[in-house]
Amino acid sequence: MRIEAVDFFYLAMPEITTDADGSQDALLVRVRAGGHEGFGECEASPLTSIAAFVAPMSHGICRPVGASVLGQTIDGPEDIARIASLVERDSMDLLQAAHTWSGVEMALWDLIGKARGEPVWRLLGYPTAFPKTPYASLLFGNDAQQTLERARDAIAQGFRAAKFGWADFGATTLDRDVDHLAAAREGLGPDGMLLVDVGQIWVEDVERAALRLPALETFGALWLEEPFLASAYEAYGELARRSTKVRLAGGEGAHNFHMARHLIDYGGIGYVQIDCGRIGGIGPAKRVADYATRRGVTYVNHTFTSHLALSASLQPFAGLQADHICEYPAAPRVLCVDMTTNHLHPDANGEIMLSEAPGLGMEVNLPALGRYLVDAEIKIGGQTLYATPAL
Amino acid sequence: MRIEAVDFFYLAMPEITTDADGSQDALLVRVRAGGHEGFGECEASPLTSIAAFVAPMSHGICRPVGASVLGQTIDGPEDIARIASLVERDSMDLLQAAHTWSGVEMALWDLIGKARGEPVWRLLGYPTAFPKTPYASLLFGNDAQQTLERARDAIAQGFRAAKFGWADFGATTLDRDVDHLAAAREGLGPDGMLLVDVGQIWVEDVERAALRLPALETFGALWLEEPFLASAYEAYGELARRSTKVRLAGGEGAHNFHMARHLIDYGGIGYVQIDCGRIGGIGPAKRVADYATRRGVTYVNHTFTSHLALSASLQPFAGLQADHICEYPAAPRVLCVDMTTNHLHPDANGEIMLSEAPGLGMEVNLPALGRYLVDAEIKIGGQTLYATPAL
Repeated sequence: MRIEAVDFFYLAMPEITTDADGSQDALLVRVRAGGHEGFGECEASPLTSIAAFVAPMSHGICRPVGASVLGQTIDGPEDIARIASLVERDSMDLLQAAHTWSGVEMALWDLIGKARGEPVWRLLGYPTAFPKTPYASLLFGNDAQQTLERARDAIAQGFRAAKFGWADFGATTLDRDVDHLAAAREGLGPDGMLLVDVGQIWVEDVERAALRLPALETFGALWLEEPFLASAYEAYGELARRSTKVRLAGGEGAHNFHMARHLIDYGGIGYVQIDCGRIGGIGPAKRVADYATRRGVTYVNHTFTSHLALSASLQPFAGLQADHICEYPAAPRVLCVDMTTNHLHPDANGEIMLSEAPGLGMEVNLPALGRYLVDAEIKIGGQTLYATPAL
Repeated sequence: MRIEAVDFFYLAMPEITTDADGSQDALLVRVRAGGHEGFGECEASPLTSIAAFVAPMSHGICRPVGASVLGQTIDGPEDIARIASLVERDSMDLLQAAHTWSGVEMALWDLIGKARGEPVWRLLGYPTAFPKTPYASLLFGNDAQQTLERARDAIAQGFRAAKFGWADFGATTLDRDVDHLAAAREGLGPDGMLLVDVGQIWVEDVERAALRLPALETFGALWLEEPFLASAYEAYGELARRSTKVRLAGGEGAHNFHMARHLIDYGGIGYVQIDCGRIGGIGPAKRVADYATRRGVTYVNHTFTSHLALSASLQPFAGLQADHICEYPAAPRVLCVDMTTNHLHPDANGEIMLSEAPGLGMEVNLPALGRYLVDAEIKIGGQTLYATPAL
């Protein structure tokens, strides 16, 4: 098969807010080859990722992603790896390339899986896909009472774990943060898993982070996520050494395998969180999962958009029974719900499972997406490099 | 002063080839505030970097670079640092942001320097700017004879150092590489500094790299540049431990301070090479220079475009007398020559010097750039987000 077409659909809610909610827009990718098609999703800034696919070449190692993809042979996973190496080399100086390629790479796995009638996790070498325990990704409330209610709601919805984050946690006083942690624990009950995400709030400041460790331990937080900038390995390592029970989590900012590996090796994290829409797709994410297993670190997906992206992000660790926690976008914008006709709903045990369906196992609902489709156009020298395709 | 306007000029040669020559296009940035203007340059893929400035917001931490820049107060270097922090946080999930911001950041230094009548290096805290010894950046020849001639030419032009790279070095046989190294040494004579750049050719393969160490030492190469992927610190570290005389060089791929620091700490490099058009501008580059000095590592600029970019890239280590080697685009495309009316030519000693002129000290020659100006247009929902401005 040859890659005949790669189409990008830029989807957005009518209004985008400054909430740290990644489900407000999406960049859906469709790849066609040999009568088959596959879908993937880039994360985030759709316009910039489209530009990185169509931009004119700057020089030999700053070619657009499209130059390494269109017309390539695609018969199996080894072709995906080969094209990934091409992108890595020929788009070396194009920073956005990793995000653009991520969505294309997922779509190629989906396409090959459909062509072979196999789920992607089996193509990755896993004989079995194990159930995962989803946690609800939530924002801390504006006050502790709201945090309490959100925690209770999550449990009422059947979640056994919830992650709270953002909303100024870590940015003001220790007392305020302690109140929110106490409220979250109260709402989740003694058995609910509590996870905390602070979104790089402390930049590189280990002392401010360490101030919160006792309360995190008191209220039984399983992990503290992204205390620092994604690349501040020294700060991660120092905080990890100071913590007795709470493990650090991070990795969503990794845009290649090495960055994730370094958070493990130098940052001392206990949970590595990979977004397949950023790291270069499913292939490098599987490499992180293998590495994490060897290092005794737990792999977790990072997903805040559609169930297409969720399925893609679950594939790399589908066969790792012990790594059973997964991020689950609990309250996405309707755009991300509408993207697929089927969804990965928790079962009676509160667990989600990837199916045996071919590829990523998700049915993209193109006709439903018209209302979200953004009309975008990029022209150079009067020539149209990109125009929103028809659904 | 407030930032009133940021204009991007996408410039390109009529024909772009696959040569590893970064001077074939450029993204010139002009910032206006309080009756002053400053210029900077992003590196590379102009269209993608423009998109990252104008793209619609995806969510609170995936805002376009423009959202953190336009309308901001800009009275001194502390404002540049403040805006840099804003970009770092609010464009956290926009990968290309670092490259876009780099050109804007340079322009802000230029603007403040002009407003205060001071060269940027003095604003950075250096009392003196020391001369630098430029090396000619050259590609290995197609055969050893061509390499020999290029080395002789460089010496004849007054260069005391030359860097050879690319052109399949490291990709085929050891014998071929030895011939090229011998030719380069012969052409440079016993006193010419020989630097070798292999452009990540060995990916992560330490053995293939180590095979070349004896010849590099025999022919007195001062450094071996980018043997591996920018993030493959383990491979760097391993090769550094195996080398007795040749030091490793790298860092051009760093898009923040931390990545450069990690090549020093984990990769064991002896020369850290920073491109101010990628790392986030002059501020983070100065932080790398300070860190390198503390760690006994030599700072070198990475520059392959115009003398505006060259001036910007020299500022962060202008006051470091011992770090006297600098990259110098010896044979740039005419576009990069035409970008400025003045140039940093080597003096009778073969050295170049930053001047006392305010800002970056370069006069951008806008009227001369019309023939290179690319007509680009980005529209969303029928609204023009970007159109090439008039010169």
